Amino acid sequence: MSLTMFFKNKPAIIATSTICGPKESQGNLAKYIETKLLDDTFGEKTYEKAECKMLSFVIEKAVENAKLNLNEIDCLISGDLLNQIISSSFSARKLDVPYLGVYNACSTMSESLLLSAVMVDGGYVKNVACATGSHFSTAERQYRYPLELGSVRPPQAQWTVTGAGCSIVSSKGGLLPRITTATVGKVTDFGVTDANNMGAAMAPAAFRTLVNHFEDTNRNPDYYDLILTGDLGALGSRLLKKLCDDKGINIDKNHVDCGEMIYNIDEKEYQGGSGAGCSAVVFNSYVYKRLLKRKFNKVLFIATGALLSTLSTQQGETIPSIAHAVSIENGVKDD
Amino acid sequence: MSLTMFFKNKPAIIATSTICGPKESQGNLAKYIETKLLDDTFGEKTYEKAECKMLSFVIEKAVENAKLNLNEIDCLISGDLLNQIISSSFSARKLDVPYLGVYNACSTMSESLLLSAVMVDGGYVKNVACATGSHFSTAERQYRYPLELGSVRPPQAQWTVTGAGCSIVSSKGGLLPRITTATVGKVTDFGVTDANNMGAAMAPAAFRTLVNHFEDTNRNPDYYDLILTGDLGALGSRLLKKLCDDKGINIDKNHVDCGEMIYNIDEKEYQGGSGAGCSAVVFNSYVYKRLLKRKFNKVLFIATGALLSTLSTQQGETIPSIAHAVSIENGVKDD
Repeated sequence: MSLTMFFKNKPAIIATSTICGPKESQGNLAKYIETKLLDDTFGEKTYEKAECKMLSFVIEKAVENAKLNLNEIDCLISGDLLNQIISSSFSARKLDVPYLGVYNACSTMSESLLLSAVMVDGGYVKNVACATGSHFSTAERQYRYPLELGSVRPPQAQWTVTGAGCSIVSSKGGLLPRITTATVGKVTDFGVTDANNMGAAMAPAAFRTLVNHFEDTNRNPDYYDLILTGDLGALGSRLLKKLCDDKGINIDKNHVDCGEMIYNIDEKEYQGGSGAGCSAVVFNSYVYKRLLKRKFNKVLFIATGALLSTLSTQQGETIPSIAHAVSIENGVKDD
Repeated sequence: MSLTMFFKNKPAIIATSTICGPKESQGNLAKYIETKLLDDTFGEKTYEKAECKMLSFVIEKAVENAKLNLNEIDCLISGDLLNQIISSSFSARKLDVPYLGVYNACSTMSESLLLSAVMVDGGYVKNVACATGSHFSTAERQYRYPLELGSVRPPQAQWTVTGAGCSIVSSKGGLLPRITTATVGKVTDFGVTDANNMGAAMAPAAFRTLVNHFEDTNRNPDYYDLILTGDLGALGSRLLKKLCDDKGINIDKNHVDCGEMIYNIDEKEYQGGSGAGCSAVVFNSYVYKRLLKRKFNKVLFIATGALLSTLSTQQGETIPSIAHAVSIENGVKDD
């Protein structure tokens, strides 16, 4: 059984904010990113503290953009890639708002959006902040090797985005983009064991959620102006298209992947961006702004996550993955 | 601002299951625990695989106890203490149900109950499995020292419970115990830096949620037959009582702590049990069975979590904590 939820009251995304490191700030989406850092330590002594500061900064900025005060935020739903999601928890400490920690790796942005939609749509809360982020240097040393080793990356690798994004989901929103449905992912594992090839591990999870979403909603790819996966990267996106083709689903016209978009893929990024911050930044900057300008009116956002840990890899496990889909559609009247 | 949600349809906890390691199975609550292991590896090659197997086992058992099939479970909400919550994610892979990963350390049981209540109460789903667990040996080596070192534990320490618990939350439930309200915690940090003294770190978070809950609901401690915190342990419970006394709140009559209950505190457990499995086991065994027998009719369950990581401690951070409260009350009629 699959789970797609329909939101009667269509919670609105009333504001967003994004922040990025120097590398991302020179990428394809540079002009859509709100805060661009010249220094990826953000003035902090450690990369972990920098990651946490980016996250709390972007939440405060999004709240400000929504013309709200922090005490009007009923709940923060947040998670990140660091062990015990410390960036999120330490941000929640700073901001002092009710907090629910979530974790589904790089699918955390769509997980938090769908949970916020449930809470707002059901009338339990008015305003929820959804946020996640990542940092290249914290991810490298936690998941891979110390940066000082200067390890050579294989060509199938992606580059963890230094960046964070936040959406404010609200019960009021007029003509602003609204969350209309959400499909909760199921963990999918095609037996990939290469922790440098996350795109291949995650593509089947994205595919499965896509199929479930279309079946549950009686929609097809044409319904959407944009099907936004992330962060599959270039290779993962090709695999997703292949899986879709095999099933007779054509997403060629309207599919893009956050990992493919964020960099001018040239140097060492190989397959593009990854990390929870990748889809958080792409969705909350470029895509949200295009929704506001009605260049897009119907977007299916499917953030994808690889649910491995260094220990699971060491113990010989394959890489299970998940993808949660959220449809965001522009309001057609001021309801 | 605090956040207390009121559930109009009062989702029911229609079944639970618990599993424990050999040590816990000889503790105070032995006769209430459903599955007692004689071997804390559960036949697996690593403790991590054992922890994961306990978690998926207890979910399947709870589903069976609810007289449901796995394909009738709309969603699994689960988290655990291992980096990247791999026990939960790998369980979700095995069970193949829609999955939302959550993490608020040892408050994960009440966090998942409150999220399931929102989803069920709002009419989005019918049946949700909420589960968490922990394992002494995985926690020791991840958070503290390799077991082989035989480190001496300080007297303020608690003992991580080897065990897991699962609740099935449902839209149907007649006279069964129901979730009526939930108060989402705020991260609270009194500056404790001793990672061996989690009770002291978490007591202020429990206190704050307690105060918010009573204010938001216009209730006082007398409303409840039982105020169940966990896992503060003996020292943390004394601190909570002191904080309550200072505020003129008397919880002497009806407060117990999961950490204080689970062991016959004698040997090396010092302040009692801890770990996400502690409150999951105590709530889903003893407390749930007493609710069924109407020995308790109104329970306030406040699982508490310390939001540290080894890295945050190494970087000189204090220990932020959180506590989520869920009220569970017996139905008075078959509504």
